[in-house]
Amino acid sequence: MDGVAKRTVERWRDVSRTSRTPEFVEDVLAGEEPLEIRISGDTLAVTMRTPGHDRELVLGFLWSEGVIRSPRDVSSLAPCARAPNVVDVTLAPGVKPPEDADAPFARRGTLTTSACGVCGRRTIDDLVTRHPPLRVDSTLAPRVITTSIAALRDRQPLFAATGGCHAASLVTFAGEPVDTFEDVGRHNAVDKVIGASVRRNAMPLDDRVLVVSGRSSFEIVQKAIAARIPVVVSVSAPSSLAVDLARAAGVTLCGFVRGDGFSVYASPERLA
Amino acid sequence: MDGVAKRTVERWRDVSRTSRTPEFVEDVLAGEEPLEIRISGDTLAVTMRTPGHDRELVLGFLWSEGVIRSPRDVSSLAPCARAPNVVDVTLAPGVKPPEDADAPFARRGTLTTSACGVCGRRTIDDLVTRHPPLRVDSTLAPRVITTSIAALRDRQPLFAATGGCHAASLVTFAGEPVDTFEDVGRHNAVDKVIGASVRRNAMPLDDRVLVVSGRSSFEIVQKAIAARIPVVVSVSAPSSLAVDLARAAGVTLCGFVRGDGFSVYASPERLA
Repeated sequence: MDGVAKRTVERWRDVSRTSRTPEFVEDVLAGEEPLEIRISGDTLAVTMRTPGHDRELVLGFLWSEGVIRSPRDVSSLAPCARAPNVVDVTLAPGVKPPEDADAPFARRGTLTTSACGVCGRRTIDDLVTRHPPLRVDSTLAPRVITTSIAALRDRQPLFAATGGCHAASLVTFAGEPVDTFEDVGRHNAVDKVIGASVRRNAMPLDDRVLVVSGRSSFEIVQKAIAARIPVVVSVSAPSSLAVDLARAAGVTLCGFVRGDGFSVYASPERLA
Repeated sequence: MDGVAKRTVERWRDVSRTSRTPEFVEDVLAGEEPLEIRISGDTLAVTMRTPGHDRELVLGFLWSEGVIRSPRDVSSLAPCARAPNVVDVTLAPGVKPPEDADAPFARRGTLTTSACGVCGRRTIDDLVTRHPPLRVDSTLAPRVITTSIAALRDRQPLFAATGGCHAASLVTFAGEPVDTFEDVGRHNAVDKVIGASVRRNAMPLDDRVLVVSGRSSFEIVQKAIAARIPVVVSVSAPSSLAVDLARAAGVTLCGFVRGDGFSVYASPERLA
């Protein structure tokens, strides 16, 4: 199947009742890779996407952004032959690219763009160069993973009232909650959690666990690494690039927490 | 409660079994508003966020982006007295703002930034000026809303395999599926749906329904308006700004689809 990636993960079960060791299972993850859109050789946007249907993605993006008003406004649209994850677009004569003054559709600090294209591997290498991998200085009990998710669920008044927002928590290695914030954007909830620790001069967070509602993406793991948070737990599944980044940076990445069980996608050595 | 907004919505129940008319109920929505972060008067970033804890959000954002390494790196951080949704930051002497060459953390076309600040109302007005409100040319049966969500669920092989990705579908007013795409980013799934119609020269999409997994945000409604899609349906709740934009633009916005019922947040007159 296109758009998926397989990784071997550790699956823990019944962590509160038994001392069973985890099983190794092969898991299927949603693929996540950067895509760079170039118009006449200039970078218009870089976005994280699931590979597959790049032509549709680029046409829809150009339409949504008001660049094109017809398929005839595009003279050519093709993957770059020399660079991975790059789509080269040539607009029809008379169709103007967005003005230079507009901000590109790229998140600062997230992505490498260069003449030779973008790829998840290089994006990860760049990040690990800027932020050295986290060492395993201490361990935590597997049941902290499941209790931290339960604690998150109890601290979401905005979600309880609306059914429509994300949350992020910081908890200690013993499972005690430090902070929880909610936001319509998961990345904002994580920034609020980190900012609260910056505000009280409690950085770095190398003895803390970051817990997030929903899934974990590349961006969430990236924020954890910048804050030196060694353990990230999400309610549901991570993307392929989140897993690969966590492995390269020494972050323990847990997900798919269901009742008394969960999966460990990266750096399982922190779980005692 | 901070971070929420109340709106009166129409709640439909048992649409496949009865001809009952909807009830009006007051619903609580997650607040969504733009926030502009300025450093020494220059815009660094504009992001959509839930109001509340802006100080934590800005500190965490600056940390994640590598701008600050200590709370002492910030001399002052305060809401702008003259402009809504703007936070003014002054960095400590010797702390460098990000280089001009970096791309700002803003999505093109989404937001207005100006000397007098950003607000949801102005952002909506700008969009409606560029894209005239959609007229009510035809209606659809309420049961199409619930069946379209069921159809979306049946067309998510990537989600079935991974448990970790979003989907968007285009369906006709009679409820027949046209296209479905999956992606780790909901906005990408929507761009792929729109791009597929651009590719086959089927724009505008004024007799189609856009169905998305999860929630609907400002950005999703914005993409629907650009494609002239008059009806947007999401599995769970919309944000406050998604509702306000849909009302201003004449988009029928449905959400919280549960079994045989759903809520209509904007432009209910298209439901016959």
